[in-house]
Amino acid sequence: MQSLNLNLKGLSQNPPPLPITPSSSSLTFFNLRTAASFPPMNHNSNNTFLKLHKSHCSASLEVQQPSPRDTDLQVHRLPQTVVGVLGGGQLGRMLCEAASLMAIKVIILDPMENCPATNLCHYHMVGSYDDSANVEEFAKRCGVLTVEIEHVDVATLEKLEQQGVDCQPKASTIRIIQDKFLQKVHFSRHAIPLPKFMQIDDLEGAKRAGDLFGYPLMIKSKRLAYDGRGNAVAKSEEEISLAVNALGGYARGLYVEKWAPFVKKSQSRDKTSVKDPDYASSTEREVTSSSCSRENICHIVKSPAHVSWKTQKLATDVACKAVSSLEGAGVFAVELFLTADGQVLLNEVAPRPHNSGHHTIESCNTSQYEQHLRAVLGLPLGDPSMKTPAAIMYNILGEDEGEPGFVIANHLIGRALRIPGASIHWYDKPEMRKQRKMGHITLIGPSMGIVEARLKSLLSEEINDDQPADAPRVGIIMGSDSDLPVMKDAAKILREFNVPAEVRIVSAHRTPEMMYSYASSARERGIQVIIAGAGGAAHLPGMVAALTPLPVIGVPVRASTLDGLDSLLSIVQMPRGVPVATVAINNATNAGLLAVRMAQYQEDRRDEVLVKGDKLEKDGWEDYLKA
Amino acid sequence: MQSLNLNLKGLSQNPPPLPITPSSSSLTFFNLRTAASFPPMNHNSNNTFLKLHKSHCSASLEVQQPSPRDTDLQVHRLPQTVVGVLGGGQLGRMLCEAASLMAIKVIILDPMENCPATNLCHYHMVGSYDDSANVEEFAKRCGVLTVEIEHVDVATLEKLEQQGVDCQPKASTIRIIQDKFLQKVHFSRHAIPLPKFMQIDDLEGAKRAGDLFGYPLMIKSKRLAYDGRGNAVAKSEEEISLAVNALGGYARGLYVEKWAPFVKKSQSRDKTSVKDPDYASSTEREVTSSSCSRENICHIVKSPAHVSWKTQKLATDVACKAVSSLEGAGVFAVELFLTADGQVLLNEVAPRPHNSGHHTIESCNTSQYEQHLRAVLGLPLGDPSMKTPAAIMYNILGEDEGEPGFVIANHLIGRALRIPGASIHWYDKPEMRKQRKMGHITLIGPSMGIVEARLKSLLSEEINDDQPADAPRVGIIMGSDSDLPVMKDAAKILREFNVPAEVRIVSAHRTPEMMYSYASSARERGIQVIIAGAGGAAHLPGMVAALTPLPVIGVPVRASTLDGLDSLLSIVQMPRGVPVATVAINNATNAGLLAVRMAQYQEDRRDEVLVKGDKLEKDGWEDYLKA
Repeated sequence: MQSLNLNLKGLSQNPPPLPITPSSSSLTFFNLRTAASFPPMNHNSNNTFLKLHKSHCSASLEVQQPSPRDTDLQVHRLPQTVVGVLGGGQLGRMLCEAASLMAIKVIILDPMENCPATNLCHYHMVGSYDDSANVEEFAKRCGVLTVEIEHVDVATLEKLEQQGVDCQPKASTIRIIQDKFLQKVHFSRHAIPLPKFMQIDDLEGAKRAGDLFGYPLMIKSKRLAYDGRGNAVAKSEEEISLAVNALGGYARGLYVEKWAPFVKKSQSRDKTSVKDPDYASSTEREVTSSSCSRENICHIVKSPAHVSWKTQKLATDVACKAVSSLEGAGVFAVELFLTADGQVLLNEVAPRPHNSGHHTIESCNTSQYEQHLRAVLGLPLGDPSMKTPAAIMYNILGEDEGEPGFVIANHLIGRALRIPGASIHWYDKPEMRKQRKMGHITLIGPSMGIVEARLKSLLSEEINDDQPADAPRVGIIMGSDSDLPVMKDAAKILREFNVPAEVRIVSAHRTPEMMYSYASSARERGIQVIIAGAGGAAHLPGMVAALTPLPVIGVPVRASTLDGLDSLLSIVQMPRGVPVATVAINNATNAGLLAVRMAQYQEDRRDEVLVKGDKLEKDGWEDYLKA
Repeated sequence: MQSLNLNLKGLSQNPPPLPITPSSSSLTFFNLRTAASFPPMNHNSNNTFLKLHKSHCSASLEVQQPSPRDTDLQVHRLPQTVVGVLGGGQLGRMLCEAASLMAIKVIILDPMENCPATNLCHYHMVGSYDDSANVEEFAKRCGVLTVEIEHVDVATLEKLEQQGVDCQPKASTIRIIQDKFLQKVHFSRHAIPLPKFMQIDDLEGAKRAGDLFGYPLMIKSKRLAYDGRGNAVAKSEEEISLAVNALGGYARGLYVEKWAPFVKKSQSRDKTSVKDPDYASSTEREVTSSSCSRENICHIVKSPAHVSWKTQKLATDVACKAVSSLEGAGVFAVELFLTADGQVLLNEVAPRPHNSGHHTIESCNTSQYEQHLRAVLGLPLGDPSMKTPAAIMYNILGEDEGEPGFVIANHLIGRALRIPGASIHWYDKPEMRKQRKMGHITLIGPSMGIVEARLKSLLSEEINDDQPADAPRVGIIMGSDSDLPVMKDAAKILREFNVPAEVRIVSAHRTPEMMYSYASSARERGIQVIIAGAGGAAHLPGMVAALTPLPVIGVPVRASTLDGLDSLLSIVQMPRGVPVATVAINNATNAGLLAVRMAQYQEDRRDEVLVKGDKLEKDGWEDYLKA
């Protein structure tokens, strides 16, 4: 969590100006996922169900009428419906991975012959999803049509919908999303909080916008803005034309946004059904992650996000409202800004699973990919909540062209293979390019601290198995900062004796999960002794002793009533089997001295063994035994 | 955990006799998983590396020489090595699923044209793995050869090994495993504890065995014993011939085992490297699950297992020793007996991933499938420990032939789709048969109690969304049974007032995880108030109050010293923000009355709302508003 704070400090009310080519600046996002089911499909449509025979010699597609069995969704919970996906990149690949667990058949349309989803899908039709003839042909072969990329031929989708093809989400949604300006107009009509924006058609208009919104002025192209491309910043009126040229000129369709002085950029995946009140109630939402973006490409995603409950609620409300205004089913990713004054503003929505949700594969009960399939097929939604306490996803971006890039990526993967809780995803793209998303690594663990440590070892050149010399050997924890004036005496003693220690506030009552993860991870972090202080109903020392095999020293802190008797008794009267070594009320000095004695004892034992080991090596075992 | 105890009670020193056709008896297993890496492969072998181009029109296999890049494992951590698997059933399918995440190519050899792994592998060679010509042809196309079924043509494997083909595990291991008698001879030579056994060649020999071992006498066939078929029991000397005939006669190769009066049957997945001391130290082991077998087919697997630390250690030692005696890499499943007198005996070993390990896909940091791939490819092993607190796997076995069987399976899946934490796996077998493994459902959750409840709702005919009328509304918990004489007064009061309550022993210090899951799940289970009693350093009420939004009433229990003052202060002196309503020392009666008042208040409020709702319906909103 400390690294998040560092990121926050880097962003103030006056953020450093973004150059026209965005440099590597750190932004933090948080993500919110919601999905809702959609009423079961109407099977009395023109769709024909496709039965695919995929042998190792041929992959011919037979178009068939639905069998009586296929139309009976009441009986058959795992539908025979073929899911068609426009696009076969890594998102499509991961949709196929999720589908294969339940033997759901996914076919893809993608112009690249060897795209990430090719080897995992049931059938890959090679062709552009921007070509109406392809899309029409493709639609005949699936029962429901969805997208993994929003830049598809939406006019054809609308035509197909009129003919009865089931598109999820609906073509109207994709049309709105494709044009970022139209998107904002749509959301502002639905009273969703946005940064101020306006269209600009010429230099006059841009100057007026600059006067209105101030500088720096964010200039964006309306369409085909992808992964950061399509934005440019004018730091002053003089820079407007430069920025506009970088985006291809006014004719491309541009608009401007008022700079939102945000402290956090948030991502939310959200889908609310608007069709069936029954299903609307199955909407589930959870704030799950924050992410950092390098050069505006999603780079690191952390989950859960460290935001207040109030902000969570606000973000959830904005996201749900935004998605409720869109038609159709599926998982939506909603990107939000959190401003310095606590406002939540919508940035943009993606009508599909998203990079920020890859971690859900390992960290959540239902991944965003499985959830998307459930939603578009009309199945009940799964439980999207996290099943592991913490997760970090790291994108494997190409760091060089061609072979050298593969070498670097493989070094990274080699390190990941040795890190506990690390899962490697490789998208099998034959061509390595700089900044290209080639794969990702997800780290999970029992606390964000541990997962961040794992990320650190992933990114460092060597895995340092040995604890660094100054890693803390004693942990000093207390339930409240009001205990610090007392507990500092322990820290002082340890410093005098050169025993590295850490000091933390960990409340058994207010932050029980943090206490749990502190206690259960202390030993593996190299802590040898824990000093725990608390006042009143002092449960911290005892609970920590229950959760770690390390020795725990308890310091009763005197509160304003009862002279510390309550905490003394709460700490010392531990039942048989779970001891806490208790010192006198407020006597953190003695706690420190006791810790020094324990740590020194361990050191002595260790040194003994090392000395003996040296002797054995030197003398040989026969002489050693004689002596 | 209660249900495990019930199972144990069903098995005593004199287990009910098993009929020749095993009936549905409940046995509990526990599982232990260990895997160790293997030194990197020697690439200067005769193997040619296969580069497969899989397009949607053809799947021709080009056999190529290894490129310079392919032989350099130091640089490339995700090997280009193609993994060949003999067998393409669901185990092969799940190996392919794991492989696809890392874009590892898996090819399979299986006689069935449409086997579970067909659609997920890189290439499916249709042919029997019992046919030497097939296996030789297949081996040319992969870099390492492994199995998902042990009944393969081992003579051919041995021949291929001599030619330099990399088989993991080694052919010698498969030869030993294939013959259950030979297996036992091998393990007994390595001083691994086994039930007594001997070969029988005729009726005289069988009678001698019966005199020696006693009855019931377990008769087994040496080879091709699979999923329970190949065992028969003679309850007396008179029944010997009947049992032998059921197994096909002495000529098939039979042996007998002394009946092991076990209380638990355990499964362990274990692989220790014998080649490279460096890798031997990377062996990791964990006791993870117990399973119940219906008709000797693996049916339900629960993880982690509820066994003592001592038993865990014993089982781990036996399993590791057993696998150390076998050559080659991979994941091994070791089945063990736990006898009534605490002994651990080896039953048998499978040289591959196993049904009992399916749950690892969702519940562990590294699944058994990913681990097997890492092991056979010479990659570092992953972390096999559980990442979720509890998991249960339920096999979807065919319950009828053909269409009716599919209907039943789909009903089950329909229920699973609505259960939180449930993951559905369907093996895509075109033919439904009774008792056939068609898929499985894995349930995960924050405690075994919760997961068992989820299993219960999976298997019941209806999902009962409403709490049944007698579901407990008050939870009475205490840290120790020595508190029961005091706490029973609360239970009495609640019974008098007809408020359904549950009574549990939950120790904050001895069972912190259980306390955590009790407190965090109480509300969703319908509990309205919690009464918590404890003596000494009484942390239970305060910690529970920190973990649930429900009101908590604390009862200080007087221990042998200090007249209860210690527990009174430990309970009552809670800090601001986390209140516990404390009653007088030992006054559980008052706690009960307080709980009644709280529960009644909630009932009154609820009734109020129901009455108002009825009125609104009856009068209509206009009249309602006027009134």
